[in-house]
Amino acid sequence: MRSSFYISDGTAITSEVFGHALLSLFPVEFNHVTIPFIETEEQALEVNKKISVSFQETGLRPLVFHTIVNTDVRKVIAESEGFNYNFLNQFVEPLEEALGVSAKPEKHRTHSIHEKTYDIRIEAVNYALSNDDGANLKDYGEADIILTGVSRSGKTPTSLYLALQYGIKAANYPFTEDDMQDVLKLPPVLKHHKQKLFGLTIAAQRLHDIRNERRANSRYSSLQQCRMELREVENLYRREKIPFIDSTTFSIEEISAKIMSQMQIQRRKY
Amino acid sequence: MRSSFYISDGTAITSEVFGHALLSLFPVEFNHVTIPFIETEEQALEVNKKISVSFQETGLRPLVFHTIVNTDVRKVIAESEGFNYNFLNQFVEPLEEALGVSAKPEKHRTHSIHEKTYDIRIEAVNYALSNDDGANLKDYGEADIILTGVSRSGKTPTSLYLALQYGIKAANYPFTEDDMQDVLKLPPVLKHHKQKLFGLTIAAQRLHDIRNERRANSRYSSLQQCRMELREVENLYRREKIPFIDSTTFSIEEISAKIMSQMQIQRRKY
Repeated sequence: MRSSFYISDGTAITSEVFGHALLSLFPVEFNHVTIPFIETEEQALEVNKKISVSFQETGLRPLVFHTIVNTDVRKVIAESEGFNYNFLNQFVEPLEEALGVSAKPEKHRTHSIHEKTYDIRIEAVNYALSNDDGANLKDYGEADIILTGVSRSGKTPTSLYLALQYGIKAANYPFTEDDMQDVLKLPPVLKHHKQKLFGLTIAAQRLHDIRNERRANSRYSSLQQCRMELREVENLYRREKIPFIDSTTFSIEEISAKIMSQMQIQRRKY
Repeated sequence: MRSSFYISDGTAITSEVFGHALLSLFPVEFNHVTIPFIETEEQALEVNKKISVSFQETGLRPLVFHTIVNTDVRKVIAESEGFNYNFLNQFVEPLEEALGVSAKPEKHRTHSIHEKTYDIRIEAVNYALSNDDGANLKDYGEADIILTGVSRSGKTPTSLYLALQYGIKAANYPFTEDDMQDVLKLPPVLKHHKQKLFGLTIAAQRLHDIRNERRANSRYSSLQQCRMELREVENLYRREKIPFIDSTTFSIEEISAKIMSQMQIQRRKY
């Protein structure tokens, strides 16, 4: 299998995202290798050795995606035996023209700490944790969004992703069987924040599979129970006009982006 | 302020990362606007209107970073009044040559669900949550890594980021004052998993500030207490040869990338 290297003087997150996006256009499998924090020529020479070894072992010339600011270090990587793609460079000149400003590259620029947004994210993570799973109902005034849904429909990972990636404060509230004795109604605590509500639902079969891994052959995980709970929440969403999506076929990234887009929430972190 | 648009038929995460990486090279502020899930020509025309409005309102031609697979939709965006950057295109041909394979673009390719890796991440998030803050000591055998450090040194956000971004199972164990009556020693439960340990530390002043926001003017948050606890854990790290970093000036992304790199852990999710 051909190797694809992602090299950077920082976290290499940008190289990875760029390289993965490009490679996903091709019906080919790769052996992905990320090497962050390459800041000296010596380190770069070590990287080039790894690239050469991969070439020798597989007979396939590796791909090398890199974003390195230091010219000397970058020159070393550019001499590797791989196919080198330095994607930032190609766009710098057109951007300089468009903006009428010269680029001023600095190390650790993209994914480094920004005092203010850093605190925003940590605060959002803490908020998501202390408002997870209906644990706390009195801080909903602070929420940017309140995710609702039945147990194991994806509320917690989504609220954590929204916090870490966007600095969004997302509480989440689970509808349980206890709420469904008769017809599921909107609890008063949620009624007061109706404009912040966003519902998740999921295919009954998938929910059944997920719950079965947690508590096999229980009433909680039975297909019948999953169907009943999902029918109730979906009816509630429609009746109360709460926006919702079916998370079955979407990734956490997609669910989060759809929520941000539908709820018109702006990210708090760049 | 000039606007920078990130447009995609998917989550727009790739456009955002690419655009932000490029723009971080310039000492200029931008008004960032992300518009995901543009899948029809009608939607694209609406986007172009927004781009035109921004141009009219600011007198500055917006930047437009886009990654759209559908040719008709892409053509519409390419006719917007902004400066258009479709970065994937420029690299497709060289990659086709390198790989000897034609690109087969598909919608929702990059950040869509991949059954297997999806489950890995959800499992890793659940693991991080149930092994947060020393809540559970018996599942350390399953951990890819065990983060240690004093209260509020960044363990929880880091373990959640490792789970969501890389599918890594990270437990975290807090050293508390109770452990430091005499000299801080490695608790037996950690000794058994010593090769998985990674330490966090932080500047005393910063810890003092963070703790003060939580419990102002307490012993817990006093500078003296912070100094004592940090001295103890740093001594322990050195004595026991536990790799560690000072998180004070690093982002969650940087801390996580450094941990992955130093511990030689491979990501489980692409």
